[in-house]
Amino acid sequence: MLELYYMPGACSMIPHIALEEAGATYTRTLVDFSRGDHRKPEFLRINPNARVPALVTERGVLTENPAILGYIACRFPQAGLADTGDPYAFADMQAFQMFIATTIHITFRQISRPDYYADGEAAAAALRAKVPERSNEHFTLIERKLSDGRPWVHGGRYSLSDPYLFVFASYLKLDDRGDPALFPAIRAHGARVRARPAVQRVLEVEGLADRW
Amino acid sequence: MLELYYMPGACSMIPHIALEEAGATYTRTLVDFSRGDHRKPEFLRINPNARVPALVTERGVLTENPAILGYIACRFPQAGLADTGDPYAFADMQAFQMFIATTIHITFRQISRPDYYADGEAAAAALRAKVPERSNEHFTLIERKLSDGRPWVHGGRYSLSDPYLFVFASYLKLDDRGDPALFPAIRAHGARVRARPAVQRVLEVEGLADRW
Repeated sequence: MLELYYMPGACSMIPHIALEEAGATYTRTLVDFSRGDHRKPEFLRINPNARVPALVTERGVLTENPAILGYIACRFPQAGLADTGDPYAFADMQAFQMFIATTIHITFRQISRPDYYADGEAAAAALRAKVPERSNEHFTLIERKLSDGRPWVHGGRYSLSDPYLFVFASYLKLDDRGDPALFPAIRAHGARVRARPAVQRVLEVEGLADRW
Repeated sequence: MLELYYMPGACSMIPHIALEEAGATYTRTLVDFSRGDHRKPEFLRINPNARVPALVTERGVLTENPAILGYIACRFPQAGLADTGDPYAFADMQAFQMFIATTIHITFRQISRPDYYADGEAAAAALRAKVPERSNEHFTLIERKLSDGRPWVHGGRYSLSDPYLFVFASYLKLDDRGDPALFPAIRAHGARVRARPAVQRVLEVEGLADRW
């Protein structure tokens, strides 16, 4: 039995969607960062790095979104969430997801956690001020990829890169994270992902259906 | 035929080692960042994100180290560089590599590229000053994992997580990146990786044999 540790609206929404798309049997455990749940010993035993998502399996705990998603795709091959039998296509999918992890995700954290990067109020202000520039650069590369009219990130077939992009592009609606108006193809893509029943169920469960 | 775009001493050393471990037939193309090669149109056609490594395959270009390494492991299964037939073990290996990508790698970049995060000299100084604290936190989690006496990152069997850790732990020798004295298990692990013929060949080719 799988158990997902998640926080509503965090990037744990991506494996949450993946589990719904897969039709998996799983349980959810809420990690409330506002109460400091992520720093409590019982969660640090699950993930010493104090982050969500963490996916508890019969074999052990998996962390890091692209790794978790690869595992879900392989565990539920009938759901067709990735080209699990094609090493090139699988790696290409993972590269897209890791690009978001190592660029956009890291950049957005400069708003919520400037203290992760540097101490002091002046540094925090400088870190936050830089976000729109970097964010727009990163999303521009993705916009270019989608601009050939493909419905999904990797072409004609939905994959786990689609909810990955959907969740991070949704954060653009928040202030100071970049300019969604620059990215029409990404916005159209987001509407397609948003329409999927699995995504709607997750937004409902995470209490975000009316504001996402 | 595979073609690796690399810069000596950069994290492209990891797939370089992987290709040597695999006994792959491949060519190497040097991207000299000091001459701005990574910003030239011919390289941006390979990787619009202007980074190494990039691995050109018959099907297209792969980027992002954990994705490239997963592909190499699957393409050369006889080399036994990963548990390619076990989705849990494969994801667990990738999670370790992605942990380094999203923590240690990002942290070290605050020294070489503070302008990536924030503008101004004061912010750059604050970004650089924070690196040892964060770096020590991240390596402490890895040190704890290795402290049960296992020879390799994932236990008794060498995998591509081993050169991954080796390369990033080697950067600790540089100034202001953390304190290698805190990590005896990681240093002993590094000596084991350094002794492998494939690693020695890569250090030789990259011109680092006498200073790495």
